[in-house]
Amino acid sequence: MKISEIGERELIKRISAVAARTLTADMLGIGDDAALTKVKENSCLVTSKDLLVEGVHFLLPGITARDLGYKALAVNLSDLAAMGASPHHAFVALAIPPSTDCEFILEFYEGLVDLAFKFKVAVSGGDTVISPGPLVVSVTVQGEVEQGKALLRSGAKAGDLLCTTGELGASAAGLLILEHNLPCAEKIRTQALLAHYRPQPRIKEGKWLAKLGVVTAAMDISDGLSKDVLEICQSSGCGAVFYEDKIPIHPIAAAVAPLQGIEPLALALHGGEDYELLFTIPEELFASTAQSYYETFGRTIIPIGKITEAPEIGMVTKTGKWEKLLIKGYQHF
Amino acid sequence: MKISEIGERELIKRISAVAARTLTADMLGIGDDAALTKVKENSCLVTSKDLLVEGVHFLLPGITARDLGYKALAVNLSDLAAMGASPHHAFVALAIPPSTDCEFILEFYEGLVDLAFKFKVAVSGGDTVISPGPLVVSVTVQGEVEQGKALLRSGAKAGDLLCTTGELGASAAGLLILEHNLPCAEKIRTQALLAHYRPQPRIKEGKWLAKLGVVTAAMDISDGLSKDVLEICQSSGCGAVFYEDKIPIHPIAAAVAPLQGIEPLALALHGGEDYELLFTIPEELFASTAQSYYETFGRTIIPIGKITEAPEIGMVTKTGKWEKLLIKGYQHF
Repeated sequence: MKISEIGERELIKRISAVAARTLTADMLGIGDDAALTKVKENSCLVTSKDLLVEGVHFLLPGITARDLGYKALAVNLSDLAAMGASPHHAFVALAIPPSTDCEFILEFYEGLVDLAFKFKVAVSGGDTVISPGPLVVSVTVQGEVEQGKALLRSGAKAGDLLCTTGELGASAAGLLILEHNLPCAEKIRTQALLAHYRPQPRIKEGKWLAKLGVVTAAMDISDGLSKDVLEICQSSGCGAVFYEDKIPIHPIAAAVAPLQGIEPLALALHGGEDYELLFTIPEELFASTAQSYYETFGRTIIPIGKITEAPEIGMVTKTGKWEKLLIKGYQHF
Repeated sequence: MKISEIGERELIKRISAVAARTLTADMLGIGDDAALTKVKENSCLVTSKDLLVEGVHFLLPGITARDLGYKALAVNLSDLAAMGASPHHAFVALAIPPSTDCEFILEFYEGLVDLAFKFKVAVSGGDTVISPGPLVVSVTVQGEVEQGKALLRSGAKAGDLLCTTGELGASAAGLLILEHNLPCAEKIRTQALLAHYRPQPRIKEGKWLAKLGVVTAAMDISDGLSKDVLEICQSSGCGAVFYEDKIPIHPIAAAVAPLQGIEPLALALHGGEDYELLFTIPEELFASTAQSYYETFGRTIIPIGKITEAPEIGMVTKTGKWEKLLIKGYQHF
């Protein structure tokens, strides 16, 4: 059977079953944002590894080498942020078409190092090989989190509030501009492309939330809010309900979506690549956490819905009606 | 300038210069078999990351999914062996053409898990994405080595003996059989393909050598003996001389090379992918080390040459003549 027929979730499930033979009882296994492995007392090593493939995850010409390097590290750091980990090291492997300019590769590393430097991540190794096909970028990042403090996808409980660290849809607006060459104000275009090419991994926020110990489940919003909420719900064995009027639509998404005749809400719900954190927190701890978060970061945590017992994902519309939410977002296969 | 013009060594040198901005003084940086990062007192984390690309590192149809999974892990474990590290975890990322059978991917993991199980390596995470081009396999392995005990490429000194852990050329013989569809006895064919598809990473041997603390430089023989010796010499700032009559030509290489009109010595010198360890050891420590190694593993360490002050790589032929050695072996670009 072709993998396109069984889909990503089923493939990962089957792979996990094979890989599970190598794991001991205290290991997390495959399926969260990053892997947790114990290396010393009171601390876990957190490892994330993503592949970016030309023509699938980025286009050339299109993204600059520098932005590609930045983004390749950013998406991995975001996985560590979603676990509440401090990043320490990055390893970079490239499969490079032979016609590639050396300057392109060095610019790629410049962009990656820009971000590495910001978060004190040491770029410590990797591999460079030739590719007869597309450029392929594989980044592995290692970080650390205090034993028992890692944010997992699996702990959400009915009644918990569903929250994000920021507004959604700006990255998808950037992609929309690129795909349809949309005419829009230069300032909006610049901001949208910045959101798309240079997402901010929420490392500090993730660490802060992990340390506080109030988060019951978390992941980063990479494939799209609706799909990512489904991930948390399936990992936690629960459902969720969004409140339409609470979904934080990024102003850039609001400005760009109508140019293509799209609802801004759709970009926020299904667009993906925002790399904000999506997390759940017991309702009674929300107010104090939100206040403390604001005092620390000067931004608010945004409550967007609630975890439910019934395993459905729904949305209460602005008119107060409950609707089953269509799950969209990025499909890997 | 195209990367095919500047070559692998120069590209890595330039990449390392950019990445060095993110490193502190106590970090090893890019350029050894694997990266060393300190995570706790008295111990270093060792990380290796390799990319295997269809059409470059393996052919489909050709290698079986199970052998590919095995080999993808083996080549990474070999990098850890070359550092003297104990492997703990593996992370696997695949960029998969959409027409790939699900069974192929699961068989790939079966082969990988076969080897992981043997060395108690936990397959802990990874990524699966789509590829519009070739199948791309990226494996990252993590291990551990006692602080100060890691085997590096950079410590060889003039007078040290150059040694390997085994006979060379069998993997290249396997490749020769495949490439030219050579007619040979079934038993030889089977053994040659086994050497090519299922190399044995010298984990136990590497750990043993690291613990003993007598090795001055080490790496694994992946690109070919002549090229890999050059790596040690350039990292250590020295040269080397081989003794032609000491080069351990694998019987399989001796049997297969003539079928294609090739000198068996050429397969042993330049063939690559043997994944034996290549290391240097002070001459006065050789006898006791070799005896102890034999008592432990039931095999001998094979001395094949000597490290020299002059930065040339030469060979003393069977007739006693010194000749400059032509460096061949696998060129990545």
